[in-house]
Amino acid sequence: MKLDHIDTPAALIDIPRMQKNIARMQGHMNTLGVAFRPHVKTTKCIDVVRAQIAAGARGITVSTLKEAEAFFAAGVSDILYAVSIAPSKLPRALALRRQGCDLKLVVDNPTAAAAIAAFADQHGETFDVWIEVDTDGHRSGITPEQDTLLEVGRILHENGVKVGGVMTHAGSSYELHTPEALAALAEQERAGCVRAAERLRDAGIPCPAVSVGSTPTALAAEQLDGVTEVRAGVYVFFDLVMHNVGVCALEDIALSVLATVIGHQADKGWAILDAGWMAMSRDRGTSKQPHDFGYGQPCLLNGTPLGGFMVSGANQEHGILSSSEEGAHVDDIAQRFPIGMKLRILPNHACATGAQFPEYHAVSADGNSVEWRRFQGW
Amino acid sequence: MKLDHIDTPAALIDIPRMQKNIARMQGHMNTLGVAFRPHVKTTKCIDVVRAQIAAGARGITVSTLKEAEAFFAAGVSDILYAVSIAPSKLPRALALRRQGCDLKLVVDNPTAAAAIAAFADQHGETFDVWIEVDTDGHRSGITPEQDTLLEVGRILHENGVKVGGVMTHAGSSYELHTPEALAALAEQERAGCVRAAERLRDAGIPCPAVSVGSTPTALAAEQLDGVTEVRAGVYVFFDLVMHNVGVCALEDIALSVLATVIGHQADKGWAILDAGWMAMSRDRGTSKQPHDFGYGQPCLLNGTPLGGFMVSGANQEHGILSSSEEGAHVDDIAQRFPIGMKLRILPNHACATGAQFPEYHAVSADGNSVEWRRFQGW
Repeated sequence: MKLDHIDTPAALIDIPRMQKNIARMQGHMNTLGVAFRPHVKTTKCIDVVRAQIAAGARGITVSTLKEAEAFFAAGVSDILYAVSIAPSKLPRALALRRQGCDLKLVVDNPTAAAAIAAFADQHGETFDVWIEVDTDGHRSGITPEQDTLLEVGRILHENGVKVGGVMTHAGSSYELHTPEALAALAEQERAGCVRAAERLRDAGIPCPAVSVGSTPTALAAEQLDGVTEVRAGVYVFFDLVMHNVGVCALEDIALSVLATVIGHQADKGWAILDAGWMAMSRDRGTSKQPHDFGYGQPCLLNGTPLGGFMVSGANQEHGILSSSEEGAHVDDIAQRFPIGMKLRILPNHACATGAQFPEYHAVSADGNSVEWRRFQGW
Repeated sequence: MKLDHIDTPAALIDIPRMQKNIARMQGHMNTLGVAFRPHVKTTKCIDVVRAQIAAGARGITVSTLKEAEAFFAAGVSDILYAVSIAPSKLPRALALRRQGCDLKLVVDNPTAAAAIAAFADQHGETFDVWIEVDTDGHRSGITPEQDTLLEVGRILHENGVKVGGVMTHAGSSYELHTPEALAALAEQERAGCVRAAERLRDAGIPCPAVSVGSTPTALAAEQLDGVTEVRAGVYVFFDLVMHNVGVCALEDIALSVLATVIGHQADKGWAILDAGWMAMSRDRGTSKQPHDFGYGQPCLLNGTPLGGFMVSGANQEHGILSSSEEGAHVDDIAQRFPIGMKLRILPNHACATGAQFPEYHAVSADGNSVEWRRFQGW
């Protein structure tokens, strides 16, 4: 289907841009000599994941057991569930492993480790558990020097549960915007995770995998000694937040929302779009960054960004397109953006915007599109 | 299913609270002597809509043609599509009317009105078009005194299209928080919409319906002379934004997200939940209101709000529960919120949070729940 015939709002994937993003990340990982395990929470779409695996990815990372179940059903077996597991979710994890899924779990506390050990013993299962390491203080995990690290390792190892490795995610990289700061955080992420692995090994606990990553640190890493694999998610599409972080150009962003002009408030200099926050998501991730893109950057249908304009406001199904200069008035808004005109809006955060849609329209270089399903829920 | 057995995160509807909210709004409409047409964009769930209709609602309001198609298929025929229509969507609207759906369209500009008239003529269809009136300057619509109002009316009427009425939505009511201000805006909304209808009638254009509404103005309205019907959506669940507006108690909020404690950062005073922004949505609607609830208000499983705590931060699948006092540290966080503990989180914005889930778990007074599907997309 041609773009002109797709009903709006719709989530578009620019396939050539996506393939370029995939090749860029995989090439960097190959150069650094580490395996790459993409985080599929960004897309929840088997068509995208197949392209990542075709380019060289080894296994995937998921953020929910529903992702693990869906991608295992689609033929992917090597899966890291990268959220510290709630003990009540262990039966679902067991069911996946019993079906032959090489599912790895994550834990960052003694209570859940003990629950895994008890459940594993009860069911005659070793599991494969990775310990989450906190290398930047932004969320969960155990810092490399904490005693809890060895405590968790011992609870697992001494009760017959396989300790498969350590993993960390330096998500505070999203708050940076210089190459130097990103390279420094990438090194901090690497060094902290390697240090945690060494402490475990020194204590007699095997720790084969050392897994690090976030899109900005993965792209900024200059060497990854001691690391076995890297994880990243949003790089496959990129978005305006990543553009502000400095790891992609606007022209690299592969996800956009197709929208139609449905009205004007000429005295305010507004064009009204049929893409509101239900389509763009409520993510305002650029609001604290160097360039605030509002609810998104409008582009022509061919992908050219319309400098000087932004989606400045959003209701559930209405977007407001106006000047991106504070207080500036666009006198000829109705002439520039007539009723029925279609635009592509680059999103702040590809993970959040994609999640608003049950499907993507994946657009080839020739302008034809096919539908790629994505799924929702837990 | 009992709450304890529902996997997390999950969207819960408290059925007794929902029924109370439905009865409250319908009772107020009955007292004011107007029809009530609930906006189903909040729930996108036929089970909820059936409860609204059983209580006395006449017809529904939708924000997308997909809602119109889904609810018509489920047996609802009187449907107002309350977004100014993009001309490219007219074939879908025609298909619905040809199947017997009493679908009403909305328009707020001469270009789309002319496109409707041309399309109607081409297909031998009169349609039923309501003109959107702008009574508070917050979004789309034509102000009551603008010449464009009569121009749009004439384009429709003189070309054989039925002008079914006028409609307005005083969405700026979400920014208010005193009964006096809400009552004043409700009167402004009423008077502006009635004035627009009178101008059309004075010009010889029939205008049977006069439709107004938003949850806050609907509840605050003291008299609705000249109005034929009211629309409101979020009242069915309410949320923290509505609580800040002053139209509901925390104990009225019928939607919550069931979450599990999966970790701690004790030195920071944090408990980590398995409900992040993918579950709560990125809506931070309370951030500019008198009380900022972060990403949500934690409650015990029985619904009792946990004063002094909030979900202060969110990653995609991680929520951070901490003190709601800036800078305060909870020393015994791991004791108060042990691993595996389940909580209910009240959301900022029920429309946004509900949209993150493919289903609700609707919980009866006896604690048993059933699954109610909702749909996604356009």
